[in-house]
Amino acid sequence: MTDASRPARVTRLGPNQYGKAETRVVRIVRDGATHRVKDLNVSVALSGAMDDVHLSGSNATVLTTDTTKNTVFAFAKRHGIASTEQFGIHLARHFVTSQPSIHRARIRIEEYGWERIAAPGAGGGEHSFVRTGQETRTTEVAFDGGGWQVVSGLRDLVVMNSTDSEFWGFVKDPYTTLKETHDRVLATEVTARWRFNWTDEGRPAPDWDESYGQARRHLLEAFADTYSLSLQQTLFAMGSRVVENRAEVDEVRLSLPNKHHFLVDLEPFGLKNDNEVYFAADRPYGLIEGTVLREGAEARIPVTD
Amino acid sequence: MTDASRPARVTRLGPNQYGKAETRVVRIVRDGATHRVKDLNVSVALSGAMDDVHLSGSNATVLTTDTTKNTVFAFAKRHGIASTEQFGIHLARHFVTSQPSIHRARIRIEEYGWERIAAPGAGGGEHSFVRTGQETRTTEVAFDGGGWQVVSGLRDLVVMNSTDSEFWGFVKDPYTTLKETHDRVLATEVTARWRFNWTDEGRPAPDWDESYGQARRHLLEAFADTYSLSLQQTLFAMGSRVVENRAEVDEVRLSLPNKHHFLVDLEPFGLKNDNEVYFAADRPYGLIEGTVLREGAEARIPVTD
Amino acid sequence: MTDASRPARVTRLGPNQYGKAETRVVRIVRDGATHRVKDLNVSVALSGAMDDVHLSGSNATVLTTDTTKNTVFAFAKRHGIASTEQFGIHLARHFVTSQPSIHRARIRIEEYGWERIAAPGAGGGEHSFVRTGQETRTTEVAFDGGGWQVVSGLRDLVVMNSTDSEFWGFVKDPYTTLKETHDRVLATEVTARWRFNWTDEGRPAPDWDESYGQARRHLLEAFADTYSLSLQQTLFAMGSRVVENRAEVDEVRLSLPNKHHFLVDLEPFGLKNDNEVYFAADRPYGLIEGTVLREGAEARIPVTD
Amino acid sequence: MTDASRPARVTRLGPNQYGKAETRVVRIVRDGATHRVKDLNVSVALSGAMDDVHLSGSNATVLTTDTTKNTVFAFAKRHGIASTEQFGIHLARHFVTSQPSIHRARIRIEEYGWERIAAPGAGGGEHSFVRTGQETRTTEVAFDGGGWQVVSGLRDLVVMNSTDSEFWGFVKDPYTTLKETHDRVLATEVTARWRFNWTDEGRPAPDWDESYGQARRHLLEAFADTYSLSLQQTLFAMGSRVVENRAEVDEVRLSLPNKHHFLVDLEPFGLKNDNEVYFAADRPYGLIEGTVLREGAEARIPVTD
Repeated sequence: MTDASRPARVTRLGPNQYGKAETRVVRIVRDGATHRVKDLNVSVALSGAMDDVHLSGSNATVLTTDTTKNTVFAFAKRHGIASTEQFGIHLARHFVTSQPSIHRARIRIEEYGWERIAAPGAGGGEHSFVRTGQETRTTEVAFDGGGWQVVSGLRDLVVMNSTDSEFWGFVKDPYTTLKETHDRVLATEVTARWRFNWTDEGRPAPDWDESYGQARRHLLEAFADTYSLSLQQTLFAMGSRVVENRAEVDEVRLSLPNKHHFLVDLEPFGLKNDNEVYFAADRPYGLIEGTVLREGAEARIPVTD
Repeated sequence: MTDASRPARVTRLGPNQYGKAETRVVRIVRDGATHRVKDLNVSVALSGAMDDVHLSGSNATVLTTDTTKNTVFAFAKRHGIASTEQFGIHLARHFVTSQPSIHRARIRIEEYGWERIAAPGAGGGEHSFVRTGQETRTTEVAFDGGGWQVVSGLRDLVVMNSTDSEFWGFVKDPYTTLKETHDRVLATEVTARWRFNWTDEGRPAPDWDESYGQARRHLLEAFADTYSLSLQQTLFAMGSRVVENRAEVDEVRLSLPNKHHFLVDLEPFGLKNDNEVYFAADRPYGLIEGTVLREGAEARIPVTD
Repeated sequence: MTDASRPARVTRLGPNQYGKAETRVVRIVRDGATHRVKDLNVSVALSGAMDDVHLSGSNATVLTTDTTKNTVFAFAKRHGIASTEQFGIHLARHFVTSQPSIHRARIRIEEYGWERIAAPGAGGGEHSFVRTGQETRTTEVAFDGGGWQVVSGLRDLVVMNSTDSEFWGFVKDPYTTLKETHDRVLATEVTARWRFNWTDEGRPAPDWDESYGQARRHLLEAFADTYSLSLQQTLFAMGSRVVENRAEVDEVRLSLPNKHHFLVDLEPFGLKNDNEVYFAADRPYGLIEGTVLREGAEARIPVTD
Repeated sequence: MTDASRPARVTRLGPNQYGKAETRVVRIVRDGATHRVKDLNVSVALSGAMDDVHLSGSNATVLTTDTTKNTVFAFAKRHGIASTEQFGIHLARHFVTSQPSIHRARIRIEEYGWERIAAPGAGGGEHSFVRTGQETRTTEVAFDGGGWQVVSGLRDLVVMNSTDSEFWGFVKDPYTTLKETHDRVLATEVTARWRFNWTDEGRPAPDWDESYGQARRHLLEAFADTYSLSLQQTLFAMGSRVVENRAEVDEVRLSLPNKHHFLVDLEPFGLKNDNEVYFAADRPYGLIEGTVLREGAEARIPVTD
């Protein structure tokens, strides 16, 4: 049996949090024969007066992770799921305001998209769905009893420009063998997070769904429109486009792996490869990460990559 | 060091094959400023006169897996990629007809879909793409120098009916605790393979892309249209719909994991759950697998699940 | 709503099976303070008189997948888990003999290994475990009411010889660019399945655990001992070693991806790479698959790769 | 084409970094017939004077990610791989001191373990290896030209206590349904990172390999020895054990998913489940994260979970 009193002399507790991760809740709304579906993966992390449970094992201040899971299901019924952000706000407020020992809640949500199946038969199209399978929508809501921080985003969005990308003029050191190119494929799998400047519940909140749809659109359009001399330039253009067009967003952080498409050397086979045949490589990959800020705003999205 | 002569007395070689798996080839077609993209994952498996290489290590009859990879890239240039099926046919024919030691080739291809990014800027929309992310298209082409067998299909297509599914009247044995239900969510991740009755190169081949699009449509529509009393019934309806509507298909094999959506008990929280809040479970899952045949056709798709 | 009578005219039902996949059962045996743990992933597949459920949705012959899951848990208590094979035999026999509609059962089991944590404190070592994390042990038991077929094996076992491997003398065709080598790294991730000649319950069964341990040992030793001129040669040596040394095994099927380790060209940096620095590549990879048979035995393990 | 001058008025660049991720380098050391192997996955992230590349696409200050990959391979030859930490130090120092535009380098390394195959044949045991498959060793070395920060650790280490774990006395709110228990299975998959107090290259560095082995041992022993009233208590005991016993470590951060093992209700089948049969669940899972600090030390490992 451990002797909890002894380590306390040499060590102390630092930052900590706990909660139930990855509760998969699906909410069906039945509007007569027409159904709508919200499909979420919810992760709760709570922190506060948790010294005792670490030092002695006393659970007197611990709302169990099982309870946080139950709350996710109950709130899906009680409040519905208007949007990932609004659902996260309901949950975070509840944990912080209902338990004295909990001083901060962080709710992470992934949303999987569904679209209707267009079926000619009776009824199918109104309650039949196929997963879109494209990007995963994300949000992270944090609340400490005072202000709010909402960081939404997406991941798994794979994009490619088959031209209008160059890469040259870089540093040459003794380990540089890369050839310069004036026409390459540029492909990446976008992970984006953007921070809303909404922090005060007294102010009207953004239209979360509209904001998401527009931010996604601007990311795609900026990627497509940018004649790229480097993936960093494309990253900055993508983040800027969102900040410029969405007044509710002050900060965008992007993580863009360079999904390399290497031109295959077909000369040994007597063939010319005029930017037609590529090998899509897995590893290693360039990884470009950066934050774009509205002038005057501070970087608050953690550099967790 | 192994003594290759000794084992030969007790053991002999059974079925075997080899080749390069998962060559990721991307083919760009440039029609002026408008580009098209084909994105494939190609796996080659060859078999034939391969006793020596197993027994003595002599590679005299071995076309290396590196060469099969090179051939994939070279053929993407030489023949283009009209469809996964046609590309597989080119490859299989080449290996069997060009090497006396190779008696059979099996080409497996996965195709990842891309759609254009609708961007208002100049040019973007013509060479900018986003991965659809939905189902993966598959094909398997086998050729032994005589006849052909082409089995195409898809996987990763996730579908859900939020009603019009019941499950009752099943066997009750001493280990049965499941309650009957007359309204449940039915969701699955479709893996489908369908066998074409085209086997003779002298006959005109199907329009592979049209066939794929229509088979996919019929699977989705049959899933949506079927009022389901069991996932087996839905499976048979889906397979039948393809066979009935596509004369070029004689056999459909489906593997349908039951992606369970369990109704959450909200009564402890004073809430009624009127088929609104579900827990989407991962494991375990029911797995329903079956083949639907055209009357008179034989089952030839292997039961590999 | 589907019209089940119509498809029946054009289509018919082919091979089919169903059951609960991936039931994760952990069985603790408490021998006083000393505990033992068995950690399994069990997948049940049943087939038999299942035409009605496919054609009309009638579940009158269907033992639900939920019941097969319950049976796995109940049998872990009732019979214990002496070995994966013995546990599978209990389950398969039960389903076939207790339900007239079930004519065949196939039980697949994965086993995850645990070893004791050597801790100096009181008690820990007797009920504290760390997962070995190496290979996953597998078995597949099939029973049709008459004979048995047991195919055991392993997967995820990654091995490497850093020398004593050559590759030369292969076919050169117009697409061949690979250089011959007389000293390469040979690495693979072993998937092996071996078929027991025990089929009749009237005969004594093998000592399943002893058999597994010895087969695993022979695979590793044969891989290490074989001076390899091709991965096919190594494959045959590995399979033969098991058949030669284990009288209870008649057939071994191996699937050996060639985990390529490419020698990095360091000359541009003024360095000599004397078989010291390698790039471990992911895709594409050579894939070598083959069966080794005892003389007189037939190949019965399906070529599912 | 993007207009780089326009966004610069509304937005500015925040924190950013780039480099090649996941370079898989394998280093063989040949000591006569006896070989040793180091198998690493190296990710480089560089930052510094990178405004221009983001704003204009000029690569004049960019050492390409391809070059950072080449450097990894070259350094594996030039310096060898004495330990993951030492290898990371060589790389980080090189990037920061050789390129004026690079002000900070962060090197992340994963190491996969290999052990010798004990083979009776000639030679095998000296150059034949099997991957241990247990934990992955990790390190993260950061250097900004002044001080060093080295954070090492492990992940994927799965442990279980089959008894000596209780959970009771927790908060009951309206969403609490969990029953208290005085004997449960406690299992987790350990991710641990520990920060060394070595920051000054002028001071002797720790024996990195000895430190790793001992930290790993203390984590395992503390997990096994701790009679647990909560996973938080176990977490604190594990972190404290390392800090108490390893003077070179000032901070330990642990992320411990609660791998729930739910006791199966066997009563419907007339069976008593006396803590013998468990269902090992996947999702959702409790997630307990926390930092243990040496008295007087500051928390510097980022809370990235």
